[in-house]
Amino acid sequence: MDKKKNISMAVIKRLPKYHRYLQELLRNDVDRISSKELGEKIGFTASQIRQDLNCFGDFGQQGYGYNVKDLYNQISIILGLNKEYKGVILGAGNIGQAIANYSRFVQVGLDIVAIFDANPKLVGMRIRDIEIQDIDNLRSYLKENSVDIGIICVPRINAQKVSDLLVENGVTGIWNFAPVDLVVPEDVTVENVHLSESLLTLIYLLNDKEESKEESK
Amino acid sequence: MDKKKNISMAVIKRLPKYHRYLQELLRNDVDRISSKELGEKIGFTASQIRQDLNCFGDFGQQGYGYNVKDLYNQISIILGLNKEYKGVILGAGNIGQAIANYSRFVQVGLDIVAIFDANPKLVGMRIRDIEIQDIDNLRSYLKENSVDIGIICVPRINAQKVSDLLVENGVTGIWNFAPVDLVVPEDVTVENVHLSESLLTLIYLLNDKEESKEESK
Repeated sequence: MDKKKNISMAVIKRLPKYHRYLQELLRNDVDRISSKELGEKIGFTASQIRQDLNCFGDFGQQGYGYNVKDLYNQISIILGLNKEYKGVILGAGNIGQAIANYSRFVQVGLDIVAIFDANPKLVGMRIRDIEIQDIDNLRSYLKENSVDIGIICVPRINAQKVSDLLVENGVTGIWNFAPVDLVVPEDVTVENVHLSESLLTLIYLLNDKEESKEESK
Repeated sequence: MDKKKNISMAVIKRLPKYHRYLQELLRNDVDRISSKELGEKIGFTASQIRQDLNCFGDFGQQGYGYNVKDLYNQISIILGLNKEYKGVILGAGNIGQAIANYSRFVQVGLDIVAIFDANPKLVGMRIRDIEIQDIDNLRSYLKENSVDIGIICVPRINAQKVSDLLVENGVTGIWNFAPVDLVVPEDVTVENVHLSESLLTLIYLLNDKEESKEESK
């Protein structure tokens, strides 16, 4: 694949969306689609779609459009979904348990291999056949097992400490659900899910629309 | 407050982050902070911070900086956190239960008043003193109770249907965890949390860094 360098974060963030829409088209037995039709579905312009996909290679054919299955497979490979990723969950509270139980992630190659928590009441319990281990075992676990992704679901005050431990032991991918911005070395990738910030954005926009409505009365 | 119109989405998306950092400063008993110091903490430039906050009013004072408590309170009001929001959870699966149990949201004024699910095994169960109701009761519940935010945690194929029902019955805020882009009228606000897309972004970036490392060898 002729993948170009320096692809903007904006394009990268749109790739999973393409992946999702193409999956939907496949489910509905759609064989091919034009950039215009795909754009209408996703809410992008046809030219944006062509530009985005051109960053990654030469897809589509003038007058024919895209072969849905091919494009889906190519984007899956670009996203790295043709491999498997070993993930450990740190913190077996609400979010940690939800992630552990969410079967959808298995489809994209995330294999949860261990779950850790500091709460003795949770240690020993099982989620989907995985026994929750004492977080004190994390260091030795990481020394003995190769882990790609650490999923941080511990409380805010412990998140950086847990992140440091992961990084020291060679974990280079962190999916962070704790409401902090982690400090990590450059070769480590952090993707944040800040639920509270998402909720705050919703509340802001909700009020903003209400105010506009009041004013236009 | 002298709130300006047409504030960009980028600025709005940064507000919750300001809120979170100011809260942290308050916890650490910091009274005042310069835009430079605040910028260093958050990772923005001092001028960006001044620009952002100027969208909402006249904060800070030359040579003094920002009074942390005042700024925190002002941003809380701008975000609309001085009010309470009634929320209902649709879908009491993994994510729905996690949201229902997450006490942090109460702090920002989200009061979960009802939970609905279609699964007879879940109906009647309680999460934090709230009984899970049959989703068939949703329409009549919405007719009798005022709800600000619908939190959609149902499977993908049911999400649009549930969203339509919420919108038809006057709910104008939707926090959507289902992996679909909902179609709603203009006066309805949707904030998405697409966990799979977040994971896919992480996996892409992880591979991208690996490849760069390989190449530089």
